[in-house]
Amino acid sequence: MPNEAPHSDLSVARQAFRDELVVADLLIPMGIDGLYGRSGTFEAIVDDVDALVRRTGYRVHGEEPMVRRFPPVYPREAFERTDYIASFPNLTGAVSTFTGGDKQHRALLADRDAGLPWDGHLAAAGTMLVSAACHPVYATLPGILPDNGVLLDIYGYCFRHEPAVDPARMQAFRMHEYVFAGDAQRAQEHRDAWVGHGLAVLAHLGLSAAAMPANDPFFGRVGKMLATNQRADELKTELVVRLYGDLDDGTALVSANCHRDHFGETFGLRTADGAVAHSACVGFGMERIALALLRTHGTDPACWPADVRAALHR
Amino acid sequence: MPNEAPHSDLSVARQAFRDELVVADLLIPMGIDGLYGRSGTFEAIVDDVDALVRRTGYRVHGEEPMVRRFPPVYPREAFERTDYIASFPNLTGAVSTFTGGDKQHRALLADRDAGLPWDGHLAAAGTMLVSAACHPVYATLPGILPDNGVLLDIYGYCFRHEPAVDPARMQAFRMHEYVFAGDAQRAQEHRDAWVGHGLAVLAHLGLSAAAMPANDPFFGRVGKMLATNQRADELKTELVVRLYGDLDDGTALVSANCHRDHFGETFGLRTADGAVAHSACVGFGMERIALALLRTHGTDPACWPADVRAALHR
Repeated sequence: MPNEAPHSDLSVARQAFRDELVVADLLIPMGIDGLYGRSGTFEAIVDDVDALVRRTGYRVHGEEPMVRRFPPVYPREAFERTDYIASFPNLTGAVSTFTGGDKQHRALLADRDAGLPWDGHLAAAGTMLVSAACHPVYATLPGILPDNGVLLDIYGYCFRHEPAVDPARMQAFRMHEYVFAGDAQRAQEHRDAWVGHGLAVLAHLGLSAAAMPANDPFFGRVGKMLATNQRADELKTELVVRLYGDLDDGTALVSANCHRDHFGETFGLRTADGAVAHSACVGFGMERIALALLRTHGTDPACWPADVRAALHR
Repeated sequence: MPNEAPHSDLSVARQAFRDELVVADLLIPMGIDGLYGRSGTFEAIVDDVDALVRRTGYRVHGEEPMVRRFPPVYPREAFERTDYIASFPNLTGAVSTFTGGDKQHRALLADRDAGLPWDGHLAAAGTMLVSAACHPVYATLPGILPDNGVLLDIYGYCFRHEPAVDPARMQAFRMHEYVFAGDAQRAQEHRDAWVGHGLAVLAHLGLSAAAMPANDPFFGRVGKMLATNQRADELKTELVVRLYGDLDDGTALVSANCHRDHFGETFGLRTADGAVAHSACVGFGMERIALALLRTHGTDPACWPADVRAALHR
């Protein structure tokens, strides 16, 4: 997350865009940065963009992808295997709950009544918030993958704890992914091909996107090295649109990633011939694409250019 | 949640239903009770049921309801006002994250490497999982409501920590609500009218439902009194279908509730003439309705009765 001074041009531009979205009743403030209610108009944009993404998925993959929809929480055991807590602890959402009896509950309420924190009375609930839509799927795959690997169509809510004024950096947002797991070559091809398909989707929407080598925001000093390696090995490509002109480096609307054997190794996935499976995914950031449309074409979708409305079947 | 012996007839029936759903690739086990991936077939049922609910909402309310969609987490300050932690602490999901630096992160990872719990290294993230779809909306309403009150159409994921074998008791599930906030009489009427509309929806789906006075599963000894009062005052009506014959009292697919002035009081909502606002809601449990269809008409939706398929526009 880029740090900026609270009164910088960038900060002012982000705040102004957020205000505009709120005034137009597209996003509804919930009292803390990065969380919003969505109006019917905003949701209809997300749904129409999603239909375009699905039509593209069908054109590319036909009926092959298995559809998987996961809830916003998943088991801690699967989370542990992603190693996310090592790389992105600051974005993580762990779930806790109350497991005591009447007496312990009275103690919790007494602290609460006294204005004290009461989280110390809770215990781990065995679940974590989903950080990337595909994370829950790997633990559900068979240890030996089918001959041609497996293609997955996954859509769900993600959580990342990074409160920000920028409406394009939400704490909770939806990601639609096409994931491949199988042999190394097809994983690489999946990633590479979806850079092009993703650019085509954004072009249909009248969004001027550029494919950029990128890295995840790995945490801390060790993370700096991981980020450098990820970028050097060209494992992550982001499709970036400039929502704020030259004030920043742009906003990633789509991300295409090769995981190499990371998930294959940690989730014990092998190809039919016994090799550790490779995987790759493309993720469409649904709220970000909707926001880029609103930023580029205006906050009234009825006034968007005819070809953009046609691409959305409006 | 009814306690039952692990080998009781009820427990066996629930386990068998869950196994049947898994074998039919409708639900995908995620390794812990109450969390499932959904297949494309299952999601299509949920979407078609939801379209029927929305058509019913349109027939009853026309264009009046404001559409609001919230993410699965919401601010702790709004959660505190619901008083949920006092009444349902055991169902709650609090979110925590890591806020330290490199050194604290190394300490977390050292505990993790040693197989120790690492939640103690986390801090409250300022958010809670949403327990009922309407909970996030009250804090977004104006303190003085419009003359005729406000009608809301809300759909979202809910979390309740109650792991169970019964597939109809999920930890994460979706609820579609129509909520009214305004004067006391219209709130009561909203609740009462939706008992009938809800029964009509379920009848269209070929589900034999009964309207039953009910109470929430309030926690602990004090909770027993709250539950008794709620039932005696007929504040909660559930539309119940017997998924397991006579083995239990049935499963609530829809719940219609009058909150009286509870949310008006705690969220500071007043009617145009200055009275504390009353509120009421009807909530359709989307996964439960889909499961009732699968239980009643079979696990292959292509073979459902013609009138049920027609009601779903299939």
